[in-house]
Amino acid sequence: MRARLRPKVIGSGTLSARICQSFIQILIVLSIIAFTVETLPDLSPAARSTLRNFEVFVISVFTLEYLLRFWLSEKRVEFVFSFYGITDLLVILPFYLQLGLDLRSLRILWLFRLFRLFKLVRYVDAAKRIGDAFRLVRVDLAVFGMGALFVFYLAAVGIYFFERDAQPDTFASVIHSFWWALATLTTVGYGDVYPVTMGGKIFTFFTLMIGLGVFAVPTGLITMAIVSTREATLNDDAS
Amino acid sequence: MRARLRPKVIGSGTLSARICQSFIQILIVLSIIAFTVETLPDLSPAARSTLRNFEVFVISVFTLEYLLRFWLSEKRVEFVFSFYGITDLLVILPFYLQLGLDLRSLRILWLFRLFRLFKLVRYVDAAKRIGDAFRLVRVDLAVFGMGALFVFYLAAVGIYFFERDAQPDTFASVIHSFWWALATLTTVGYGDVYPVTMGGKIFTFFTLMIGLGVFAVPTGLITMAIVSTREATLNDDAS
Amino acid sequence: MRARLRPKVIGSGTLSARICQSFIQILIVLSIIAFTVETLPDLSPAARSTLRNFEVFVISVFTLEYLLRFWLSEKRVEFVFSFYGITDLLVILPFYLQLGLDLRSLRILWLFRLFRLFKLVRYVDAAKRIGDAFRLVRVDLAVFGMGALFVFYLAAVGIYFFERDAQPDTFASVIHSFWWALATLTTVGYGDVYPVTMGGKIFTFFTLMIGLGVFAVPTGLITMAIVSTREATLNDDAS
Amino acid sequence: MRARLRPKVIGSGTLSARICQSFIQILIVLSIIAFTVETLPDLSPAARSTLRNFEVFVISVFTLEYLLRFWLSEKRVEFVFSFYGITDLLVILPFYLQLGLDLRSLRILWLFRLFRLFKLVRYVDAAKRIGDAFRLVRVDLAVFGMGALFVFYLAAVGIYFFERDAQPDTFASVIHSFWWALATLTTVGYGDVYPVTMGGKIFTFFTLMIGLGVFAVPTGLITMAIVSTREATLNDDAS
Repeated sequence: MRARLRPKVIGSGTLSARICQSFIQILIVLSIIAFTVETLPDLSPAARSTLRNFEVFVISVFTLEYLLRFWLSEKRVEFVFSFYGITDLLVILPFYLQLGLDLRSLRILWLFRLFRLFKLVRYVDAAKRIGDAFRLVRVDLAVFGMGALFVFYLAAVGIYFFERDAQPDTFASVIHSFWWALATLTTVGYGDVYPVTMGGKIFTFFTLMIGLGVFAVPTGLITMAIVSTREATLNDDAS
Repeated sequence: MRARLRPKVIGSGTLSARICQSFIQILIVLSIIAFTVETLPDLSPAARSTLRNFEVFVISVFTLEYLLRFWLSEKRVEFVFSFYGITDLLVILPFYLQLGLDLRSLRILWLFRLFRLFKLVRYVDAAKRIGDAFRLVRVDLAVFGMGALFVFYLAAVGIYFFERDAQPDTFASVIHSFWWALATLTTVGYGDVYPVTMGGKIFTFFTLMIGLGVFAVPTGLITMAIVSTREATLNDDAS
Repeated sequence: MRARLRPKVIGSGTLSARICQSFIQILIVLSIIAFTVETLPDLSPAARSTLRNFEVFVISVFTLEYLLRFWLSEKRVEFVFSFYGITDLLVILPFYLQLGLDLRSLRILWLFRLFRLFKLVRYVDAAKRIGDAFRLVRVDLAVFGMGALFVFYLAAVGIYFFERDAQPDTFASVIHSFWWALATLTTVGYGDVYPVTMGGKIFTFFTLMIGLGVFAVPTGLITMAIVSTREATLNDDAS
Repeated sequence: MRARLRPKVIGSGTLSARICQSFIQILIVLSIIAFTVETLPDLSPAARSTLRNFEVFVISVFTLEYLLRFWLSEKRVEFVFSFYGITDLLVILPFYLQLGLDLRSLRILWLFRLFRLFKLVRYVDAAKRIGDAFRLVRVDLAVFGMGALFVFYLAAVGIYFFERDAQPDTFASVIHSFWWALATLTTVGYGDVYPVTMGGKIFTFFTLMIGLGVFAVPTGLITMAIVSTREATLNDDAS
């Protein structure tokens, strides 16, 4: 019976398997939306109760799916310790732990429900190509990543040196100055911290001239690698 | 008479057709400018009246154009349901509806006048090439688009987790935190919302390190695709 | 004597010509710095007088250079109406006009002194290559430039529609909303204007998702074109 | 004995040399962290004393390393005046100067401790490839660098012209306006300075349309050069 049921549920070609998988995908997305809505501070008790019931339903389905996949897999130990097996377990485990213990203090467990996002990865083929692209440029990425950290650190030290007397609260230490370096080098520029001395402004000029290049190059490298990977794939298909 | 008139009005080679089309194009641009000026809050009644009269004139010309195109086209049903036929109708229809009914409450209809912008597309050949380029990278774009949404969502959840106690109004829920995620990951950084806790700032660091790549790669992909498309076109022309 | 003097002053190989040209270049840079310093509001009368004297000296040298170039050129009419001839004249003319007439009211003439920056172009060979690169992608640039204007306009109209009731002063008309569209689509994000309504924020999300691509692609195109131009130059040199 | 000891300490293949070098690297990173923590304003005297002792230990090890490298090198004069020799000396020298003289007034010497960051370069092979990439595009980079300075200067002059009457404090001179030009052209946009007049806003539009291209192209050029360099390396390896 297991052999007959397997292709119908976790296979990749049959219609029934495709329906099962679409159902799970939709449920993941819906439960993520429920998770998001639940954080609204002014929800009515009725809405909160509905969301709670939906959560119980979702957990039931995911538990059923986990047990089914476990029962149907040929190599059960391998499944339990595979990426998908662990993800599937992490998604449902916090709910059952919550029933037995009083975990209200462990707020971080609440974030575990987000692991269901990773359940979606199972259905994304293209993720593999992006992995290939990253592997292709990993050395350059590492070098530029270290270069970026280097510039980032020197920017924080420099602005601390120039601004600590003028703004002793905002630039209280090199560690405090990291926040300015982040907002400036990524060009986010919230506007909560910025230099006011002439020296600090001139230093910002040179930091940005050097830093923008160092921070923007890695992005370009990934793009080039993705194009290379696609061309390689196309050539393989053609030959 | 239809067969004789057609090339003179909607053909592509004759002088008279070119004059007609240039006239329509200039009228579209002028009417968009009029639409823009009309939104100024402190217009004099005289100016308002002039703009109103110009609008009536524009609609008259567009109606005439629509009727002429309908009358001159060989396959009239096809024209009515084509992209250009529908656009042309949507541009003039709200005006006539407004005469019969009192639509002052339906503010959205006022935006329909913008459809005349799409009338300009008829005259842009190069739009096709951009379409080709998008088609070439549509899989990568979709993957990175999903990746961007993924990062975007996790950024909002994370900052909500770190900042909800320190800034309960700004980061009231995950939904409220999306606004911060948008301003940060696109590096717009208006400065109306930003983290103030140490945890939130460190989280911002990692969000930006990962997020900037994910958000910037799609742009690079489109650029590469446009270059590829142009080279393909040049090779076709050469061979 | 003209024939003997020409290579020594405006030639390109001799030592004396190189010294003349370096002297002029340094004078241009110094006079630009003087122009910049002169705008400082709290200069002492002595400093102001020194800057004025330096300006008279610079104008004297530039006038001498213009007369020399005119006297030495074989085709004098052509020189007067060439790009360099006109630039050289525009640099010195406002000074002499100022002597005869009272031009204090014509503030824009004060900016004419900046034309001496363009005198520097004479000495930059690489400017030609950038011109070639722009010509290579001018069609794509024009298309994306129009696309950017299109997105820019629709962004302003949309935000006006969503925010005019909540912020009637900041988003008083579509024309006022252009300022928001500019700060947002270029990701500058000064923070003086930003949407506060839910609708306006969701609209900002979609505007940025579409707009960033449209605004960032032209830059990528120019980069690719410069690389192509360099490779073409290298191939020409090799063959 | 020197010949026997050399490979064990500064060689590149032996295990003992690798352990020595890893120890030095970890010490550099730790001492940089100590340097960073030391700037915190509210450190307890005990923590300050611990950091001071750690600094003495680090300097001792670095001094020992310097003397060992000097003693072991075959060409001692060359080592002293090599990049690494000078860096190693600059790292330890300020400490000994501080013992003899009262240098509390020379705050800049405090920054010399950062030179130990450059000691890390000795262990980064990939730095060479980035140097090659920069050399490949140095002409284009110089041209665009000058173009960026040109646009930067004209932006400051223009905004000064438009805004000096409306905001005489913020845009007090062209020199004051550079700060606005920097924050705008790099799209950082802190929000402490921005134009308020209609003329200044229109000028900002044109500045950004031209400036973004000029400022973003150099980054793209470096990316392309790095890809070219990697391909050249791969081809060399293959042939």
